[in-house]
Amino acid sequence: MMSEQTFTGLQAVFLNCSIKADKSQSRTQLLINRAAGIMEAEGVSVEHVYALDYDIAFGMIKDGATEEPKQKDDWPEIQKKIMAADILVIGTPIWLGVKSSVATLAIERLYAYSGDHNDKDQYAYYGKVGGVVITGNEDGAKHCAMDILYALSHIGYTIPPQADCAWLGEAGPGPSYGDTEWKGKKLDVPAGYDNEFTNRNTTFMAWNLMHAAKMLKDNGGYPSKGNTTSGWRHAMNAEDQNPEYR
Amino acid sequence: MMSEQTFTGLQAVFLNCSIKADKSQSRTQLLINRAAGIMEAEGVSVEHVYALDYDIAFGMIKDGATEEPKQKDDWPEIQKKIMAADILVIGTPIWLGVKSSVATLAIERLYAYSGDHNDKDQYAYYGKVGGVVITGNEDGAKHCAMDILYALSHIGYTIPPQADCAWLGEAGPGPSYGDTEWKGKKLDVPAGYDNEFTNRNTTFMAWNLMHAAKMLKDNGGYPSKGNTTSGWRHAMNAEDQNPEYR
Amino acid sequence: MMSEQTFTGLQAVFLNCSIKADKSQSRTQLLINRAAGIMEAEGVSVEHVYALDYDIAFGMIKDGATEEPKQKDDWPEIQKKIMAADILVIGTPIWLGVKSSVATLAIERLYAYSGDHNDKDQYAYYGKVGGVVITGNEDGAKHCAMDILYALSHIGYTIPPQADCAWLGEAGPGPSYGDTEWKGKKLDVPAGYDNEFTNRNTTFMAWNLMHAAKMLKDNGGYPSKGNTTSGWRHAMNAEDQNPEYR
Amino acid sequence: MMSEQTFTGLQAVFLNCSIKADKSQSRTQLLINRAAGIMEAEGVSVEHVYALDYDIAFGMIKDGATEEPKQKDDWPEIQKKIMAADILVIGTPIWLGVKSSVATLAIERLYAYSGDHNDKDQYAYYGKVGGVVITGNEDGAKHCAMDILYALSHIGYTIPPQADCAWLGEAGPGPSYGDTEWKGKKLDVPAGYDNEFTNRNTTFMAWNLMHAAKMLKDNGGYPSKGNTTSGWRHAMNAEDQNPEYR
Repeated sequence: MMSEQTFTGLQAVFLNCSIKADKSQSRTQLLINRAAGIMEAEGVSVEHVYALDYDIAFGMIKDGATEEPKQKDDWPEIQKKIMAADILVIGTPIWLGVKSSVATLAIERLYAYSGDHNDKDQYAYYGKVGGVVITGNEDGAKHCAMDILYALSHIGYTIPPQADCAWLGEAGPGPSYGDTEWKGKKLDVPAGYDNEFTNRNTTFMAWNLMHAAKMLKDNGGYPSKGNTTSGWRHAMNAEDQNPEYR
Repeated sequence: MMSEQTFTGLQAVFLNCSIKADKSQSRTQLLINRAAGIMEAEGVSVEHVYALDYDIAFGMIKDGATEEPKQKDDWPEIQKKIMAADILVIGTPIWLGVKSSVATLAIERLYAYSGDHNDKDQYAYYGKVGGVVITGNEDGAKHCAMDILYALSHIGYTIPPQADCAWLGEAGPGPSYGDTEWKGKKLDVPAGYDNEFTNRNTTFMAWNLMHAAKMLKDNGGYPSKGNTTSGWRHAMNAEDQNPEYR
Repeated sequence: MMSEQTFTGLQAVFLNCSIKADKSQSRTQLLINRAAGIMEAEGVSVEHVYALDYDIAFGMIKDGATEEPKQKDDWPEIQKKIMAADILVIGTPIWLGVKSSVATLAIERLYAYSGDHNDKDQYAYYGKVGGVVITGNEDGAKHCAMDILYALSHIGYTIPPQADCAWLGEAGPGPSYGDTEWKGKKLDVPAGYDNEFTNRNTTFMAWNLMHAAKMLKDNGGYPSKGNTTSGWRHAMNAEDQNPEYR
Repeated sequence: MMSEQTFTGLQAVFLNCSIKADKSQSRTQLLINRAAGIMEAEGVSVEHVYALDYDIAFGMIKDGATEEPKQKDDWPEIQKKIMAADILVIGTPIWLGVKSSVATLAIERLYAYSGDHNDKDQYAYYGKVGGVVITGNEDGAKHCAMDILYALSHIGYTIPPQADCAWLGEAGPGPSYGDTEWKGKKLDVPAGYDNEFTNRNTTFMAWNLMHAAKMLKDNGGYPSKGNTTSGWRHAMNAEDQNPEYR
């Protein structure tokens, strides 16, 4: 059991996949800030990336600037930050019940690197942990979370317990997270700021990401037995098991 | 780094959520057996549960036999096995692109217990790890995986890297996993048995579940700072962070 | 353009897939009643089916009572009602962000009949229209709607515009649709009853289902050119098109 | 019942949301061409739009060129084509089990116009019909279809029966639709070209879109009773129904 836990030495990237060109308009950033604030206060080195501040090329490509047809592409710069970090948190707004186009684009680009390996010959994202922050004004948080967390898990991230947090209003049009008025009426508290459930889940997410990242770092990531493309046949493996036994 | 890894002392439950009343007809069981075979060979104590061998009541209830209206309900017996285990693997067939009704029912029943706490006052599933085994004859494995893995994560399970494995055939009707003939023609190898991708992913899943379960067990699960209903406000928390900072 | 529209002669089934054994406890029924009320007032013959009032067998089977292994199975009785109706509305609560186990089971059973044909040799559900009514206390309506509406569309139902309606509360635990108090406080209006968005969407859904059902009935369903298993190769078809043209 | 059916006068847009900058590399286009070929042969006026041939701005905006912050934006030109057409078919590849970023972006932009009205004061997409064409090399077609078809339905499109078609290979890496070799081996037929299921479903989709579009056009779209923002309270409506009746 760990005591006097400290998270100094851990690095986290919060990637905000809002579709708003002007980042000061992103409500998702407000909830991201609360999650990031916890990590910073606990010694984690936090970097914020606002995806639309970058020109990100479409394609199952690593670098649009070097692959044909050549395209302006800032993704390699973002990828470098992500590879340096122990924790990746993707923030997304909800539109029509699903994650944003920008989040979809970011995940495609992460996926394009998913064949890379670490020095144990595991996929390169092994040993990292992932989470999501979601805001919308009425519906879709769990759907977005399952979609994004699965993508992260599938490329090698570990998903600790309750690694998603969100704010949503009641069914129908309504204020967005942080709005101070709605239909001309002042709100006592910006929308969602005092939602206990959102605050609790955001706290759980931040801590579980830190706990899991530290545990994995202290363990040197995952042992490489049974989980490398080059070595799985040398470990006990599925090919050698009798499916009809039992 | 661990060496001479041994998994003796770990327990795993494989819960097959096939919709076939006769378990000998379940193709999902065949792929489950391969994953389970790896774990057993590595010292894990494995228990197989075929959901439809039990009478499982519908409802967001813990025990149909004691809640009104009273219903015959074997779920508490299954729940006991799951709570005793470090690893839970849910197996499901795919119908119309989604997980089975039986898998949906099993997850509802797991969810009904999600308010229970462990001795650190965390949610009771904390410290356990989860995975999925999926078979279908053409489409839907990732969709089923994201749905089930998210549910497990949301109630407290940890999802290690690449915790899903599946077999699927080409688009359209075709043989199911393990079929030895199709449209009257003998197949050289039972369908899917020699699919390298399926065998590799099944191997990765089995090992990553074992690695993560052992790591968590050796660490005494997750530290309880910041992730308990009773204590999150006493740790650095979201309520105290300024969302507008940055 | 139709004038003096009348819907007499149309039949609708509302299938409530709540997981509550006691139907008087279903909140989904309350919203279903509003949609059904509109149809009844406009002359549609409405039948309500509460799924858990029946013993429905698991399996990709038409009739559990006659297929091996024999099981008690009331589904054939429900199927008869559905086949007699022009409109099918599936009601589901949301649990963990997804449709209920009972809804999943009902769809599996509908799917088991999807190979049947009508007298034009089209799939038997052709010419019918489908919709969904969803209630939950915070999240998941669009996800459930897409899942259910797709299943209906895939087996042959037509989905008119905005064929889903729902009520959801704000993120976190909260009252369910129709609750008259929450955490000991009386609510001025039962939860959701005065939600304009929910009432509007419920109205749109009811009318669009009626408009589409009548239009299809007046047209004798879909012409059978190009959409029958036996005849598609005799119409202009995909096999004969050059994929590389353009 | 219609006889001597003719589809002259109908217009269709096929919107290819491939993520490949070079459209000649898109495999989705090959399957689109088969669906489009059927419609053209039957007299429908078909327009192909390759999304990445255009600069499409991110944002819940109608025109990036006129809204702040100003952005280059060709979407209004695409929107004009879509509004002129009776049929919209969205084509998408599958990446990590979900629809492409480009498809997500296109749907967000369609959604930004969803508050517009037609001359009956219904939402502007009422009376149009929608479908999807999907290609991937192993998994995810139904998931993409439900996501896209739901989005179309939610903004006002009608979804006729079986409005999705797809090609997928067996689980694991494999040839893409139209590939003529795989791992150095020549294929007898380009991958998927002779898949009967894909060809049949593509045929069904094309015909059902034409049948439904013609039926709606002949009926002058949907009657506007009960489905307009301005008028729903003047028709029989949900607000006036007693939810507790029954």
